[in-house]
This record gives sequence, C-alpha cells and structure tokens, in this order.
Amino acid sequence: MIGRLDHVAIVAPDLDAAISLYRDGLGAEVGPVLDLPAFGVSTVFIRLPNTHLELLHPLGEASPLVGFLARQPGGGLHHLCFEVADVAAAVTTLQARGMRLLDPEPRPGAHGKPVLFLHPKDTGGVLIELVQA
Amino acid sequence: MIGRLDHVAIVAPDLDAAISLYRDGLGAEVGPVLDLPAFGVSTVFIRLPNTHLELLHPLGEASPLVGFLARQPGGGLHHLCFEVADVAAAVTTLQARGMRLLDPEPRPGAHGKPVLFLHPKDTGGVLIELVQA
Repeated sequence: MIGRLDHVAIVAPDLDAAISLYRDGLGAEVGPVLDLPAFGVSTVFIRLPNTHLELLHPLGEASPLVGFLARQPGGGLHHLCFEVADVAAAVTTLQARGMRLLDPEPRPGAHGKPVLFLHPKDTGGVLIELVQA
Repeated sequence: MIGRLDHVAIVAPDLDAAISLYRDGLGAEVGPVLDLPAFGVSTVFIRLPNTHLELLHPLGEASPLVGFLARQPGGGLHHLCFEVADVAAAVTTLQARGMRLLDPEPRPGAHGKPVLFLHPKDTGGVLIELVQA
C-alpha cells in the first residue's frame, strides 16, 4: 500500500541554524520558509535527489511541536510521510486492520494534497503521515 | 554534498511485530533479517520505490541501541543515512566546517560500503550516517 517516501520531517528549535546546517554544512538545496497556521508549524523543504526533508518549527502557542520540544529541546526526527494512491481507500484498509488514525478524515497538507496521520502507538513508535500521491 | 537518502533507520523492540506492521499492515516489501555483530544490531531492510527503511534491533548486551530503548521503550526513528560521492572527502570537508564525527574513520556498513556517523549535537539532534554512493 505505501509507495514512495515523500519526506522525513525534522523538528528544528532554531530554524535559521537548521537551514544553515543543511544548506552550508551538508550542501543540500533548501527552499523558502512556508507557514502552515492550520498545522501550527512553519516548514522548510529540502530537496534531495530522491525525496525531501521537511524542517518543522513551532508556529503559535498551540503548536503540536511544543510537547516534542519539551521532551527533546535540541530537536530531532519527527515523522515519516509515505505516498498512497488513494488516501480515502487507505483509511478504510488501515482501520479494518485495527490501526487508529489521529485525524478523523484526510485534510489538506503542506502542498494542498490530502494527508492524514496514523497513531504512533499502532506504528512502533513512529509517527506516520500518508499523503495522496 | 549529500545526495540520495539511502535509508531511514527505525528501532524496533519487537522485530517480528515491526516486520508484520510494514509487510502486512502497510503493504511494503520486507527483506530478511541480517545480523551485524560489528554494529551490535540485527537489521531488516524494507524496499520502497525511492529509498529504504531499515529496522534495527539490539544484538548483544553491548548494543548501541540499549540506551535508545531505555529512553524510548516502544522504539522509534533512529537515524538518516545519506549517500555521498566520496566518504573520505566528506570527512575532510565536514571537519573543516567544525562538525564532529562519531567514527574516527569510515568503516564497512550493512552492505560493505564505507559509512560514518556525524555527532548529533552538530546536526540538530538528528543522527546522520553517510554512505559511499
């Protein structure tokens, strides 16, 4: 069911430092900062030849990243996002397999495509996002 | 400098459960278990259309995963591995940029290619492995 790895998301407590690390330190192609108020995050996409990294920084006091940074103040790996051919069909299949979703239904993600998150207690401690291919 | 994302590594406290999750739950192509005594891990590679996931399970009492599982008993995301054209040249460049390495020099990784790890305190809390392309 899961297809390509669309991106790996990384929480960055200091967005400028993270941009500098990936652009100047590791020589990757770093895009602009994009605010996603509906998700409570600012994001920066980093283009790799076969996938993307997504830097995440809290936006607003209700950001879902506040808890993550309380546990890991230095930042770190946050979630994986996989493409699926049909997010709505994936919901039905995964629920039939006993997996819980964090979103009651898909919603538009960073690039406007439908996304949803699976419950990390059902996925071996890894937060997994699915995005419509 | 960094090229393709070679793999994302995930610590799995219950390897059979993780294999079942990715193979039966998420419908991915899961390879055989491969023991790497030199790294203190058992690994399972999962093939995606554009990259791989690597499940990691402790092998031996001195496994470097013991500390990770003490902090996160349920498992979770562990490291990212990027291809570089020349690992030896990357060492020189990264050290000149003030980044510390966990390995004094590259050593053979899961597939026999030279690998090394960067110090996560210099990489925004993310453990990064580099592998010779």
